[in-house]
Amino acid sequence: MNTNPKADLPDITDVHLAWTRIRDQTTSTPVLLDPDLDEWAGCRLAVKCENLQRTGSFKFRGASNAILSLEEANAAEFSSDNKRAVATHSSGNHGAALALAARLNNRAAHVVMPQNSVPAKIDAVRRYGGTVHFCEDNHSAREAGLEELVDQGMIPIHPFDRREIIAGQGSCALELFADHPQIDVLVVPVGGGGLISGCALAAAAQGVTVIGVEPEGAAETVASLDRGQRVVDLAPDTIADGLRAVIGVRNFEMIRSLVENVVTVTDGELRAAQSVAWKLLRQVIEPSSATVIAAITRYPELFADKHVGMIISGGNVLLDDWIDAIREHE
Amino acid sequence: MNTNPKADLPDITDVHLAWTRIRDQTTSTPVLLDPDLDEWAGCRLAVKCENLQRTGSFKFRGASNAILSLEEANAAEFSSDNKRAVATHSSGNHGAALALAARLNNRAAHVVMPQNSVPAKIDAVRRYGGTVHFCEDNHSAREAGLEELVDQGMIPIHPFDRREIIAGQGSCALELFADHPQIDVLVVPVGGGGLISGCALAAAAQGVTVIGVEPEGAAETVASLDRGQRVVDLAPDTIADGLRAVIGVRNFEMIRSLVENVVTVTDGELRAAQSVAWKLLRQVIEPSSATVIAAITRYPELFADKHVGMIISGGNVLLDDWIDAIREHE
Repeated sequence: MNTNPKADLPDITDVHLAWTRIRDQTTSTPVLLDPDLDEWAGCRLAVKCENLQRTGSFKFRGASNAILSLEEANAAEFSSDNKRAVATHSSGNHGAALALAARLNNRAAHVVMPQNSVPAKIDAVRRYGGTVHFCEDNHSAREAGLEELVDQGMIPIHPFDRREIIAGQGSCALELFADHPQIDVLVVPVGGGGLISGCALAAAAQGVTVIGVEPEGAAETVASLDRGQRVVDLAPDTIADGLRAVIGVRNFEMIRSLVENVVTVTDGELRAAQSVAWKLLRQVIEPSSATVIAAITRYPELFADKHVGMIISGGNVLLDDWIDAIREHE
Repeated sequence: MNTNPKADLPDITDVHLAWTRIRDQTTSTPVLLDPDLDEWAGCRLAVKCENLQRTGSFKFRGASNAILSLEEANAAEFSSDNKRAVATHSSGNHGAALALAARLNNRAAHVVMPQNSVPAKIDAVRRYGGTVHFCEDNHSAREAGLEELVDQGMIPIHPFDRREIIAGQGSCALELFADHPQIDVLVVPVGGGGLISGCALAAAAQGVTVIGVEPEGAAETVASLDRGQRVVDLAPDTIADGLRAVIGVRNFEMIRSLVENVVTVTDGELRAAQSVAWKLLRQVIEPSSATVIAAITRYPELFADKHVGMIISGGNVLLDDWIDAIREHE
């Protein structure tokens, strides 16, 4: 990319514009409130169900904003890309989201995916009309795969380190705060950092504190914050397949300035949290989403007696693994 | 009961009063809209998720209205029952709902349940503080079990054939229409008839047509409508455990006058519909709830191109059975 990442950060206006732009194409996802859950949590929870977003995750917000921004630029004749294909790398959710957003706007989408991606996520990319290209499961293989597609003339839509993507993801926090203005803490999963950086813009405008949660086995954001610079060479080892990506450049800058704290949870805590989501919320959530519920159990002092907003990021599970987690905690 | 059932039917005012009475205690359940589901269905769907109601089914609305009506009568000194225990019979969902509604108002609840009830439903009654009394799985055994408890001095709260229960269940249709006034057909599962008769009052006030759906193996409402009188001697044989009850007296009267049509679906169609709910709505729904989705597939001509409201009545599944249904349709 030609732009200087630090000069290319979205602001709260971008998030509002994104929300307006994508509204007709995305689902205004439900927010669940439950007294039994509150009793369990020791705080007042408002649970934003992005697992019920189209394609099963929040990623459809950012992908829609990126694609619709391309179409707007074409319409305004700032540029005309002749409906060039878009390309990305993804562990699955962004890939499926980009495939659908592209299809709805008559574009082709190509997705570089790790070979060990959740099969249901690979199927989803294809079902929404995307073309899958497999790669090794590491940061440099993903980036190399994407570069190859860009060399063929495709437009890269990075899964998280991109202005329109971050702004689009932030729309889910705007939607949550619009109906629940009393929230004072927002807890968000951290992978590449697209969701949390967009949400942090919305939260800052609202005076809401943001806490991020990472799996212990992919805690490169915590390591990056500790070291004061991005750590990109940790090998991820976690069941939270959606959070194995390395924190982005823009995302790291934004988290440093806007996020109060990033905490970690174990894979065992994620499985227990999946069970809590099932028993108390009747939602099937993926391990990545379970981070935010696990954080409530592990760090109750951060949330006690507060109004806590919580983003459930996605529901695209491997059903066998999900059932195992539920059975383990029956 | 002393009252003449036909003189004791609720009207639309009762439904509005119920909605107001129970609002603080119940969940305003989300309504899901999904373009992919619409494409599958060939109509515009608004899916009211009562599976996300407290205790996992719409039954908590009627139970709350019944209990809160007792408390109001006490407060107004129309009567003082000294917080007498309440009793009912139930395949499970009404039992759990009554147990929680009673507990929230400091009453004991006793529930007569068929021995072959879904274990998770038996556990739920107990978890919410109710006492379970087992009986044979037929209409007369249920009624006899309840009478025995009433003879011990408890207040009977019939699961569906009672004014406050019907009015309470109807509140979910009011809630749906308030946000989705464009609905022109409402499709509702039929068991004892509490949900559909309450919803039909709300629908009539809105000019909405109501279609009921029964499993073929418990189609005593269709038989009753055909014969012009209640049929109470059919032995139920269906996986839709929530719909095995016999249509109530008040409920039959109301369905006769307010419901356009009651149609039937097979158990096989219910399992396929559970899979559709999972794939397109990401909801885990019980077989009883799947009736309304199955009806769309079986009777497309009733719904084509219309704005269809759909009540998903509950989500209390036996997880093994649910998984089997999903695997069967992968």
